[in-house]
Amino acid sequence: TPKHVRALASVHRASSIFAPHDEFPERHIGPDDKETATMLSKLGYKSMDAFVGDAVPTKIRVPATNISNETIAAFSESQLHARAKALGAQNKSFKSYIGMGYHNAVVPPVILRNVIENPQWYTPYTPYQPEIAQGRLESLVNFQTMVMSLTSMDIANASMLDEATAAAEGMVMAFVSSNQKKKKFLVDSGVLPQTIAVLRTRAKGFGIQLVIGDASSAIEDQALRSELCGVMVQYPDVNGNVKDFAALAESAHSAGALVVCGTDLLALITLKPPGEWGADIVLGNSARFGVPAGYGGPHGAFFAVADKLKRKMPGRLIGRSRDATGKPAYRLALQTREQHIRREKATSNICTSQALLANMAAMYAVYHGPDGLQRIADKVHGFTQVFKSTIESVGYKVSNSTFFDTVTVDVTAIGKSAKDLHEASTAVGINLRQVDNEHVGVTFDESITPEDLVKLINVFTSVVSSPSVSLADLKEPAGSSIPPELKRTSKYLHYPVFNKHHSETEMLRYINHLASKDIGLVHTMIPLGSCTMKLNSTSSMIPLTWPEFSNVHPFVPYDQVKGYHTVIKELEEDLARITGFHSTSLQPNSGAAGEYAGLCVIRAYHENRGEGHRDICLIPISAHGTNPASAVMAGLKVVPVKSLADGSLDLEDLKAKAEKHRDNLAAFMITYPSTFGVFEEGVQDACKIIHDNGGQVYLDGANLNAQIGLTNPATCGGDVCHMNLHKTFAIPHGGGGPGVGPICVAEHLAPFLPSHPAMSSIGIKAIDAVSAAPFGSSSIHLISWAYIKMLGGKGLSESSKIALLNANYMASRLSGHYSLRYKNTKGRVAHELLIDLAEFDKAAGLKVADFAKRLQDYGFHPPTCSWPISTCMLIEPTESETLEEIDRFCDAMIQIREEAEDIITGKQPKDNNLLKNAPHPPSVIALSDAEWNRPYTRREAAYPLPYLEEKKFWPTVSRIDDAYGDLNLICDCPSVEELAHS
Amino acid sequence: TPKHVRALASVHRASSIFAPHDEFPERHIGPDDKETATMLSKLGYKSMDAFVGDAVPTKIRVPATNISNETIAAFSESQLHARAKALGAQNKSFKSYIGMGYHNAVVPPVILRNVIENPQWYTPYTPYQPEIAQGRLESLVNFQTMVMSLTSMDIANASMLDEATAAAEGMVMAFVSSNQKKKKFLVDSGVLPQTIAVLRTRAKGFGIQLVIGDASSAIEDQALRSELCGVMVQYPDVNGNVKDFAALAESAHSAGALVVCGTDLLALITLKPPGEWGADIVLGNSARFGVPAGYGGPHGAFFAVADKLKRKMPGRLIGRSRDATGKPAYRLALQTREQHIRREKATSNICTSQALLANMAAMYAVYHGPDGLQRIADKVHGFTQVFKSTIESVGYKVSNSTFFDTVTVDVTAIGKSAKDLHEASTAVGINLRQVDNEHVGVTFDESITPEDLVKLINVFTSVVSSPSVSLADLKEPAGSSIPPELKRTSKYLHYPVFNKHHSETEMLRYINHLASKDIGLVHTMIPLGSCTMKLNSTSSMIPLTWPEFSNVHPFVPYDQVKGYHTVIKELEEDLARITGFHSTSLQPNSGAAGEYAGLCVIRAYHENRGEGHRDICLIPISAHGTNPASAVMAGLKVVPVKSLADGSLDLEDLKAKAEKHRDNLAAFMITYPSTFGVFEEGVQDACKIIHDNGGQVYLDGANLNAQIGLTNPATCGGDVCHMNLHKTFAIPHGGGGPGVGPICVAEHLAPFLPSHPAMSSIGIKAIDAVSAAPFGSSSIHLISWAYIKMLGGKGLSESSKIALLNANYMASRLSGHYSLRYKNTKGRVAHELLIDLAEFDKAAGLKVADFAKRLQDYGFHPPTCSWPISTCMLIEPTESETLEEIDRFCDAMIQIREEAEDIITGKQPKDNNLLKNAPHPPSVIALSDAEWNRPYTRREAAYPLPYLEEKKFWPTVSRIDDAYGDLNLICDCPSVEELAHS
Ligand SMILES: Cc1ncc(COP(=O)(O)O)c(C=O)c1O
Ligand SMILES: Cc1ncc(COP(=O)(O)O)c(C=O)c1O
Ligand SMILES: O=C([O-])O
Repeated sequence: TPKHVRALASVHRASSIFAPHDEFPERHIGPDDKETATMLSKLGYKSMDAFVGDAVPTKIRVPATNISNETIAAFSESQLHARAKALGAQNKSFKSYIGMGYHNAVVPPVILRNVIENPQWYTPYTPYQPEIAQGRLESLVNFQTMVMSLTSMDIANASMLDEATAAAEGMVMAFVSSNQKKKKFLVDSGVLPQTIAVLRTRAKGFGIQLVIGDASSAIEDQALRSELCGVMVQYPDVNGNVKDFAALAESAHSAGALVVCGTDLLALITLKPPGEWGADIVLGNSARFGVPAGYGGPHGAFFAVADKLKRKMPGRLIGRSRDATGKPAYRLALQTREQHIRREKATSNICTSQALLANMAAMYAVYHGPDGLQRIADKVHGFTQVFKSTIESVGYKVSNSTFFDTVTVDVTAIGKSAKDLHEASTAVGINLRQVDNEHVGVTFDESITPEDLVKLINVFTSVVSSPSVSLADLKEPAGSSIPPELKRTSKYLHYPVFNKHHSETEMLRYINHLASKDIGLVHTMIPLGSCTMKLNSTSSMIPLTWPEFSNVHPFVPYDQVKGYHTVIKELEEDLARITGFHSTSLQPNSGAAGEYAGLCVIRAYHENRGEGHRDICLIPISAHGTNPASAVMAGLKVVPVKSLADGSLDLEDLKAKAEKHRDNLAAFMITYPSTFGVFEEGVQDACKIIHDNGGQVYLDGANLNAQIGLTNPATCGGDVCHMNLHKTFAIPHGGGGPGVGPICVAEHLAPFLPSHPAMSSIGIKAIDAVSAAPFGSSSIHLISWAYIKMLGGKGLSESSKIALLNANYMASRLSGHYSLRYKNTKGRVAHELLIDLAEFDKAAGLKVADFAKRLQDYGFHPPTCSWPISTCMLIEPTESETLEEIDRFCDAMIQIREEAEDIITGKQPKDNNLLKNAPHPPSVIALSDAEWNRPYTRREAAYPLPYLEEKKFWPTVSRIDDAYGDLNLICDCPSVEELAHS
Repeated sequence: TPKHVRALASVHRASSIFAPHDEFPERHIGPDDKETATMLSKLGYKSMDAFVGDAVPTKIRVPATNISNETIAAFSESQLHARAKALGAQNKSFKSYIGMGYHNAVVPPVILRNVIENPQWYTPYTPYQPEIAQGRLESLVNFQTMVMSLTSMDIANASMLDEATAAAEGMVMAFVSSNQKKKKFLVDSGVLPQTIAVLRTRAKGFGIQLVIGDASSAIEDQALRSELCGVMVQYPDVNGNVKDFAALAESAHSAGALVVCGTDLLALITLKPPGEWGADIVLGNSARFGVPAGYGGPHGAFFAVADKLKRKMPGRLIGRSRDATGKPAYRLALQTREQHIRREKATSNICTSQALLANMAAMYAVYHGPDGLQRIADKVHGFTQVFKSTIESVGYKVSNSTFFDTVTVDVTAIGKSAKDLHEASTAVGINLRQVDNEHVGVTFDESITPEDLVKLINVFTSVVSSPSVSLADLKEPAGSSIPPELKRTSKYLHYPVFNKHHSETEMLRYINHLASKDIGLVHTMIPLGSCTMKLNSTSSMIPLTWPEFSNVHPFVPYDQVKGYHTVIKELEEDLARITGFHSTSLQPNSGAAGEYAGLCVIRAYHENRGEGHRDICLIPISAHGTNPASAVMAGLKVVPVKSLADGSLDLEDLKAKAEKHRDNLAAFMITYPSTFGVFEEGVQDACKIIHDNGGQVYLDGANLNAQIGLTNPATCGGDVCHMNLHKTFAIPHGGGGPGVGPICVAEHLAPFLPSHPAMSSIGIKAIDAVSAAPFGSSSIHLISWAYIKMLGGKGLSESSKIALLNANYMASRLSGHYSLRYKNTKGRVAHELLIDLAEFDKAAGLKVADFAKRLQDYGFHPPTCSWPISTCMLIEPTESETLEEIDRFCDAMIQIREEAEDIITGKQPKDNNLLKNAPHPPSVIALSDAEWNRPYTRREAAYPLPYLEEKKFWPTVSRIDDAYGDLNLICDCPSVEELAHS
């Protein structure tokens, strides 16, 4: 049969020569009209409408005339580009010296082009399949190693969402370490204000009491000491001060409290690292290592702890283990700490983190190495010294005597007010930190040139009418201003990886080599159920790295970021339209962070009505593990609700529990379509039950891709929902983040949406901040904004329909070979399908993992494994996959089914077969005849289907031993000695 | 032994905190100080100076105080970025409707980011090693297929330098087809003026007489017919006219002349293709298929011929063949047509062509497919119709009755002059074509929006004080304006590859899949002697795709391109400084084009002195094949000069021949250091001999990388030299182009440098144009400009020294294992080394290719093979490779030497061994035990050295059968039927 020949994806000849011919839907949606027709007819439908009618329950359908997302006009790709350019031009390119945890970054060009602008790096998923993810696993270990080495801590994880939420995690760890007994947490007043705001929010849910003040003196309060679980300091602090916290740490430890330290990796090149003066938990933002400010992010925060705390550490941890042949290999370690295992016992809900940005920061350290970083730290510190001495010479007074890169300037010494300085600086395009009426703050970074420094100094000289200085006046500082006892003396980054790749050629090859080990959307479908791995279009990615969007400090005045605020406003409005809700907050940096924010909003709503005692949260047992974890974090008690045999919610059980808890019912969390991949018929009934009992409904929008233009969370009966912009709205997953988890809420909840210290106007009912930056990871909002604007309302609806069709076509092809666990009364699934492999375990001891690893040999990324049911695979093709790709995947699945049959029937032994031995990397295929003790040929192992002859992605290691790695936990890079030994 | 740990490449702690810390030399140069010291000491030197003293003959050294390149100041990477931005801002972003073979391009974002901005595509070399280049070979076959299909010709090549030089090649083919007997070539006056200018230059060398006029009538002249070798037409012509040339073609054929047609691929979607009305040779510029105008290029020109002419076709041709296992595979076909074989019998010198741009155009066709292209063609034609009817309705007259996308407007009909129109259009940022005082030209393209069209129309309405039109006034045109007999009726692009990859996901995967088959600098050293494959830095590549440089028509007024002209001027000056010469022309688009231009300048110089009879060109037998080919093209007679046994020029022979030809001696061409990789001691003596006998010295600067800061072509005694900016000055090779081959000349030759019809001021002695665009491939001048400015004078010198050191270190490691063919009296080579493998052929029938293919198994791109000596490999590491990479390569070479020893000693059979069977792709490693009938293990084949366990680039096919492919020449993609069959 001739290969399928396809026309343009779904739109053909333009109706008018004046219509744009670069419309996005036809590029985004995989199947063209012919393929769509083929799939419909194979499923027995005459029209798309008939099919959708069967797939989506009629009761929840939004009437066609009423689908408000369809009012969103579509921009063509070039129109969007022009619009983004125009908006970018509305952001003013001021030079910011604001500091407060954010800096101007210098992205090494080789990293810019080959990491953040390279789909090989940005399209992969979280490395749950380590055999086809060794590249970014290695890079994340570099990140961990860099953090461990610079902080001098025992172990570090593979990134957190931002510095403020990392601090909140640190606080909760301290609390948990006291067995949740000691409720006081001391916060030094030098901690970043946005961190304090987030601590405040988080403290509330756990019932922790924050004490804010001068930590070194406050800690001596005996009453406090007995209840103290931890203390947090900032090193250097927000005003630039570098304090010696050794005594404080000793005092905290003697009170049985943990010391949490917010810090800065560049400063630690010069300063004695927290691990050497007693900190237990060290965290911060790694973004100044080559990640643009982006008006708030995304940035990789880091988190490092002392060895004794490692098994309580939140977030993902990469460890070294070995593969089936004994070869060293990386993989996610201590996975049992994840939410799907811990659920309501969890105290953290972090899932998607900031892998891509952590990788950028790690690559920056690889590129510069210890010498290069030293040079940068010297420069930054040196500039600060020169600035300080020069302005002091004209009468200013610097308030902090010790400093690394930040000084707080007392302007009263020269008889001026801070306003005078801000006026003078703004007039020449410079932003200083707004401290108070008497002080301004100035923070230096790698990007500042001598010319910038002169311009900055002359702002200060002009205000006192001193003569201006010129480049020639700049003098080298005499040595460092760090007191000897605070100076770093220990070595750092003495691992080979940080000392080899310093020429651009070597760096390029290293980046490319790691990328070559990883499967991404550039290779194949990634049909991970619940993850919606769709096209991350180039058009939506391009504006992201434009300087007008990337080089913006998150705390600049609004009038400098009009372009950004148009994007933010339009995205907020479009999301509200799509969900059917009233208002949006873009602040949460992941889906889980959105859940938490939404539940906090619900709590605030109840409180505001005098029902603060409502603390019961009903959650179906099928829910994603982050749901119960978020509920706990918001101070709610989780009560599970059962599912029926057909996968749907047990409405009886729901009703019983809602009524039982009617006096204390706070919320019900539900995923829709359910995590089993079906649209519940009774969702509205369920919501009514909750409302009738005084609760609010939280809708987990991870599966929103199935809904758009057909139904929406408001119609389903929800009050609040989060979306994963990194799923439904096409932000690339980046190998484990960034993510954005905005929440949309009904009108009655709008007043409670999160605030932020840097927000210009905040309602008084608003909850405190949930993220470090006022609008979260602003730069990547551009991606979803572009995605929505380019698809337009109709394209969005069409995408959802095709997502449903692709999944149902796949279900139909696989049925007869695999048992579909759930479908609706019409025999249809939603946008994903759950197949149950339990029978294979029974028949031949074949596990889900054996099928998954074998899929790797077929060049595919496996679907979601063992979730939400341990014996199942959850498969989600999305609308971006063509029929050809879907058929190829089904062919592979069916062929594996046949391979399994040979094992079941005994043609192949149960312990030595194609599935158990999978995957087969080239090094295994190359085993000698003597070593190849397998009852199948190498060709059967490597080329089981003909398409693999032309195109095959190879795993680089064989199956990885998880248990071995967890027993022998090693989370840093190989050292010089180890490499020499190997 | 512990792995090598290195510091930053060569600069350590900054001397001042005010010094930039992103200086380029330390990133560009591979070895750091420690590695440099190691290499020097292994070679027995105490200092770099001592080493350089031995490597470079003292007599030709430029005194340190006199090295003018060292005056070039260095910009850091960020400084260069800022400067490029500032210069870009000086280019005005006008919308050009100038046409004349150039259009505004719309680059599909997925192609922009993943091809032209992707080092996987831009860093590879010409696919001389097809087993590790199947990706771009396939893409180039797509290009050929696209051209064949759209032109309806039998065969097309893989690109030409530009449309004008392609036309010149067409003319010469016509001349050669008449056995160089018929000297007249008729050129229709509708041919592009820049094409005519280049034809004029080229005609001169071959003694062809151009006749310019209305071809359809002129051809009936009987006197002309008897001498006519060919006729060239433009379809549509420069004024937009689409003429029916069927009768002309018939008439030409009956006179025994060939028909050469310049055309436009987009127009051929709509117009009857030249292959269907009798054209024999069809050519043009493919750039409107998604390649930016770039103020002149680089662009991929195309060239297609009738079957009977295929073996005379210039340029590279990709064909399908099969590998050792019978698998289909692509490779360069009919290589015997290349210059190194044909030398002075060649009539074309094209070598580097425009592979990267051809690949972009091919990808554009893959992305849009026939339906998408049709839609674009309809739009462009439709806009032209709407424009024409609208301006005619207000009184203008359009001179051409037939058109595709271009109209010539007669402004006298409304009583105005062209100047009035140009003034009105320039005032609103629009460029029209300057035809003459009575006419302006307007050409439409894909980028024009309805808003643009309205604005354009209103320029015309305003001049006649008509009311302006608005978007709402635009009406769809009624059908096409192409007369039925000129309409295309045949199918096009009906191959699967153009009908599958239309979603962005599929396109991305296709681009990535092809890239994954190809080795580039992103993987490994490419030590191709004479090719200087060094770092193509990201910083130098970034400005290239900025719109302010890419979206500029080559014929805009100078005052719109001030930024470009600063770059051009600075690059010209820096190159003059580096070569020691007076003036530079950037016009030639490749090294070979530079040779030709330089020789034409020499001829013009002689002519100007009344010595036009001088036509002898002495060329050493070791010269690159393009040298004699270029000489022939410039109308010179080649006289070869011998080499001595030590590889140096035979000065006796030179002297004898110079004296023998003293009356007619025009030039001597010499490569320095020689193509054997040594600095000739006697180069100045040789030049003196030439000058004494009235000749000029042409220095082939392919090896300039060995010279900078040590000597220069002027000091060596030359009068003119070309440089390959794609070698010495770091323009990426793009898998076979683009290139830039500027020439620098001594003061006495400066007046003769090439002119161009679009140049504002031209000296009267200037030769005619050698390229279609006045400054050649302007956009990529940015790369070399950035490279020179970022290295600065000192960095340039340092680079040359390290290039010498790396080559000599490699020579020393390989000696004892391989025989070094040539070295100087001190035992040193220059920047490359020639090893002779003849002994292995004698001992065991092992050829150069066997070693080369085996190197592929070690993950390396082999060195230059069998050139300049058939039994040799020429190895050039360049300064960008680290000691570690060089050692890795040497380890591989030495291990292969040991494998060869086993064959020589009979341990392995002569016909079935690791070398003869190399390379070993995964599909071969996976052969069943029965099929693996080889006397070595799979591990020995695939993992002969330990480093391969961690990092190995795999060939995708086994050794390719060249002879089979040439016998069964197939140069298009597989058809639907073929694919179905396979
Ligand atoms: C149903 C569901 N809810 C919540 C989440 C958590 O989202 P995130 O990973 O962005 O925190 C996921 C992530 O996979 C999910 O599938
Ligand atoms: C010595 C020499 N001369 C001339 C050329 C031709 O240069 P180009 O390929 O740019 O036309 C080459 C190319 O490799 C060369 O090595
Ligand atoms: O074509 C060559 O580059 O030699």
